[in-house]
Amino acid sequence: MYTLYIANRNYSSWSLRPWVLLSELGIPFDEKLTPFQHGTSSSWTLFRTFSPTGKVPCLHDGDITVWDSLSIAEYVAERHPAVWPSDARARAWARSAAAEMHSGFEALRSHCPMNCGIRLKLHTTPASLSSNLARLQELWNEGFTRFVGPYLAGATFTAVDAFYAPVVFRIQSYALDIDAAAQAYVQRMLALPSMRRWYDAALKETWRDPDHEEETLRQGTLLRDLRAA
Amino acid sequence: MYTLYIANRNYSSWSLRPWVLLSELGIPFDEKLTPFQHGTSSSWTLFRTFSPTGKVPCLHDGDITVWDSLSIAEYVAERHPAVWPSDARARAWARSAAAEMHSGFEALRSHCPMNCGIRLKLHTTPASLSSNLARLQELWNEGFTRFVGPYLAGATFTAVDAFYAPVVFRIQSYALDIDAAAQAYVQRMLALPSMRRWYDAALKETWRDPDHEEETLRQGTLLRDLRAA
Ligand SMILES: N[C@@H](CCC(=O)N[C@@H](CS)C(=O)NCC(=O)O)C(=O)O
Ligand SMILES: N[C@@H](CCC(=O)N[C@@H](CS)C(=O)NCC(=O)O)C(=O)O
Repeated sequence: MYTLYIANRNYSSWSLRPWVLLSELGIPFDEKLTPFQHGTSSSWTLFRTFSPTGKVPCLHDGDITVWDSLSIAEYVAERHPAVWPSDARARAWARSAAAEMHSGFEALRSHCPMNCGIRLKLHTTPASLSSNLARLQELWNEGFTRFVGPYLAGATFTAVDAFYAPVVFRIQSYALDIDAAAQAYVQRMLALPSMRRWYDAALKETWRDPDHEEETLRQGTLLRDLRAA
Repeated sequence: MYTLYIANRNYSSWSLRPWVLLSELGIPFDEKLTPFQHGTSSSWTLFRTFSPTGKVPCLHDGDITVWDSLSIAEYVAERHPAVWPSDARARAWARSAAAEMHSGFEALRSHCPMNCGIRLKLHTTPASLSSNLARLQELWNEGFTRFVGPYLAGATFTAVDAFYAPVVFRIQSYALDIDAAAQAYVQRMLALPSMRRWYDAALKETWRDPDHEEETLRQGTLLRDLRAA
């Protein structure tokens, strides 16, 4: 049985990726959630007890430790081929799109931190964010056109959808302006059983991490906070 | 036959990864080198003619386009299993270490930009860089201890070595302070035929990109420039 270490559902965008991947594909795992700690390197110290980078997510499989969301996807894919599309072309595309997210989209990640339960109006849309959003829509639409949907790389939910799942919550929280096909995909993703489970549990969390709150609120004007008090 | 699009050898750390991987494993490919263009988004415009992100590296295999260094490794691995260690434990470790580099080590990447032909003394060593170097040494030594070397994940050169190849040139250029085992690995990597071919060709390049030069020289005092005039 896999053990997946994650942090707060409300904030932890990297944790969401393998969690929603395993959940949506019906691959069983034990979940261990450790909330973020406040203050310089205090999460690091605690997370180091189970993750060599002091970061989440981290997967344990017996005595094997897999410590990054993308390598978790590849590790699980060796055992569960449904992780990636079965068609070689779709698979190459899906892996490129997931890897592009893994080391790219910096503006989207820094200007729109994941905070599932809030709704916020951005103070500004920097050019770097606009160009990330342009690329995002281009990429998603290429996927829909080439592989016919309803998922990014074809008829089934695969790891590339899991890698863009945090973007789905960001688009919802910041009401980011995207085209109709991208918006329809966002709605489809939000309706998935595992995405709903994550979201509902995120809203019920009562931990607040000052660092993540501050990082979010700096970006714009708070419109609504849907989280449990 | 694969076609691999890269940029200047002297600067392009991401290009080096798949290039050294294919070269060291003896996997044939055509190389297409396009030098960086000066000025906002001018490389992007040119690189977009062959790469959907406007970035290098990009691999073409017939009409399949694979546009990120890590997805290139996985794409090639499906056809050439030697890309990753054959032992499942070593493979899980190697993939985690490569993915950690793909989205991490920000301080090392920003404070020590790859510039193969120069030698430079850093003005300062920020705490973020020291902690990246501590993690680097911990990771490499874990690899040497668990998989016995001489490479990071065992007896053969695999993709994880390719992903840390740019770090090898950074350590050389900035004389970064690392322990003896890490230093011995750096020397071993620098002596590899494909690393020497890359390095020699980098030194012969006469293109200078003002953006990359400025980014490098901002970090410290130039000690030597070994590049052809
Ligand atoms: N590349 C890593 C990134 C993991 C990461 O940055 N995780 C964040 C949480 S989403 C973390 O643990 N940060 C530690 C902290 O905030 O102290 C992955 O894909 O797993
Ligand atoms: N995640 C990408 C990153 C690629 C990347 O950032 N490449 C740089 C060169 S090393 C680039 O093409 N930059 C475009 C530019 O400088 O205009 C990968 O792994 O391939």
